[in-house]
Amino acid sequence: MSELKNDRFLRALLREPVDYTPVWMMRQAGRYLPEYRATREKAGSFMDLCKNADLACEVTIQPLERFPLDAAILFSDILTIPDAMGLGLRFAQGEGPVFDRPVRTEADVNKLFVPDPEGELQYVMNAVRTIRKELNGRVPLIGFSGSPWTLATYMVEGCGTKEYSKVKGMMFDRPDLMHKLLDTVAQSVTSYLNAQIAAGAQAVQIFDTWGGVLTPRDYKEFSLRYMQQIISGLTRESDGRKVPVILFTKGGGQWLEDMAATGCDALGLDWTTDIGEARRRVGDKVALQGNMDPSTLYASPERIRQEVATILESYGSGNGHVFNLGHGIHQHVDPEHAKAFINAVHELSPQYHK
Amino acid sequence: MSELKNDRFLRALLREPVDYTPVWMMRQAGRYLPEYRATREKAGSFMDLCKNADLACEVTIQPLERFPLDAAILFSDILTIPDAMGLGLRFAQGEGPVFDRPVRTEADVNKLFVPDPEGELQYVMNAVRTIRKELNGRVPLIGFSGSPWTLATYMVEGCGTKEYSKVKGMMFDRPDLMHKLLDTVAQSVTSYLNAQIAAGAQAVQIFDTWGGVLTPRDYKEFSLRYMQQIISGLTRESDGRKVPVILFTKGGGQWLEDMAATGCDALGLDWTTDIGEARRRVGDKVALQGNMDPSTLYASPERIRQEVATILESYGSGNGHVFNLGHGIHQHVDPEHAKAFINAVHELSPQYHK
Repeated sequence: MSELKNDRFLRALLREPVDYTPVWMMRQAGRYLPEYRATREKAGSFMDLCKNADLACEVTIQPLERFPLDAAILFSDILTIPDAMGLGLRFAQGEGPVFDRPVRTEADVNKLFVPDPEGELQYVMNAVRTIRKELNGRVPLIGFSGSPWTLATYMVEGCGTKEYSKVKGMMFDRPDLMHKLLDTVAQSVTSYLNAQIAAGAQAVQIFDTWGGVLTPRDYKEFSLRYMQQIISGLTRESDGRKVPVILFTKGGGQWLEDMAATGCDALGLDWTTDIGEARRRVGDKVALQGNMDPSTLYASPERIRQEVATILESYGSGNGHVFNLGHGIHQHVDPEHAKAFINAVHELSPQYHK
Repeated sequence: MSELKNDRFLRALLREPVDYTPVWMMRQAGRYLPEYRATREKAGSFMDLCKNADLACEVTIQPLERFPLDAAILFSDILTIPDAMGLGLRFAQGEGPVFDRPVRTEADVNKLFVPDPEGELQYVMNAVRTIRKELNGRVPLIGFSGSPWTLATYMVEGCGTKEYSKVKGMMFDRPDLMHKLLDTVAQSVTSYLNAQIAAGAQAVQIFDTWGGVLTPRDYKEFSLRYMQQIISGLTRESDGRKVPVILFTKGGGQWLEDMAATGCDALGLDWTTDIGEARRRVGDKVALQGNMDPSTLYASPERIRQEVATILESYGSGNGHVFNLGHGIHQHVDPEHAKAFINAVHELSPQYHK
């Protein structure tokens, strides 16, 4: 493997010194980029794009060609695992993801299995290998997975939901079944992320998009516990370097202490938590990634720059900050505004690293 | 006015002793009740129902006929104020509320005015008077309004949104305009709630449904500040009793200290905060209302009862707890499950009030 030319992202995640604050954007390869939309059109469906290593590599690299980003993230979907379990993933027009065979009964749960990451999921590992080769040491490559609870919400509901009636119904009334489901998913995520690391991922992020819809008690029992299980099972070294793990629970601002105790290296923060306050709470244990409101990118470049300055100042001097949005970039954002954001982080942050 | 026969709700909000924990449910008059659906059908549109004092009274009382609730809440909508400002409210099938004339420009903001609560909004006051008479002292009547920020999101977006691009765009790039809009709305809410109190509302709740989508800084500047302005302007006495004010920001669990400092009497909590922890943080300043996950009502009556027990135990002994859901009751809940919830609160809570 070629030597890493920009390792600021990895160093910041391990709270080592850097000369400026590294930055990337969740969903940086996405619909806000016209070149992404063109490749997507060429690919056919969204999953066709995920399953074609060359095209997945192409869209992964696209934002790096436009912006001086400090990390690349594998282009894929969080629902690859349940799809590999045979639930029949479709992306219905205007409806978001749909599973043809959702998990509702004890028999459904018993049928679940841990997919072979170099079998049903080999297309993901092929994408990791292709991207890693194409990056050629330019910046580190982030692998990722959805959290077990987040995957479970889609697996049980069968589609997007506002009320979580089915998945919470199972959680409340059949906690034994929910735990069995989550354990199988956690085992699957562990083997999936380890395979991504073996294929070349230099850091991994666990996306707990829906942990924030739980009570504090249920979050610990049904989401955090399984993310901890995954973290305990991960291979944490690759190419002789530590592979940092980032844990991101959207809406998890009240539970940072519990999240920091899982053994992860960094916490992803959404924008509802002040990053300086978060640093005071858990900054002696973990690095922090975040946390500009993605809607700020609808504002003028001047206002975006001001918001970047506010967040940098709130975090303050010293190590352990990776700049990011607090959630994925929105599809109607002007790419020039994304550029203003990234440039502002690079231009305004060196004073905090003297 | 007839004497209040059950004042537990008002006493609990003022942290005075009660013999059991009072309980009501946000959106307790709603689509989960077949009798509501029948009245709604009879009324025509949703706004026709809101504007007919007799029918609004009928649906307000319906849940009290089924369940031993400790409070009634005015049946109305949070968008009555912007509707009275001439924005043209419609409820489009499957789309939720839509404004035909959203507020986008400086000229749009300049056209806004404070509606006369006994003029354009008299139908709301008529409903309050009718309900109060019909209740005949059975339980207290809660009046309510949306928060200025929450109303502003609908007024600027013109419809429901996930990204808040337009309202946040105005907030980021034209904070002067956003403040002008919010100030007009705050003045309108103040006069609207004071008129509800004059018409007979015995407590009022401010619903800040969308404050939780802001950063902590923006929450304080664009949402909390205007709720504080409203609270400062409210008439706090009626029939020789104090009129308590409840502040509810969905997703506001990280900001309880700031919310408690507004001069409100109680905070509504969603289910992502442990109520015992919230009591330790702000329980010496305010009462707490909440906070069972509304999706718990999809579980079995036994499991619902267990969850009620957990929340009662978490709050612990003593005054200052009004039981509620952490958000409105979902439309597909079985009314028998709502009954199990309310009965569990009444049956399990006396031990905490000895």
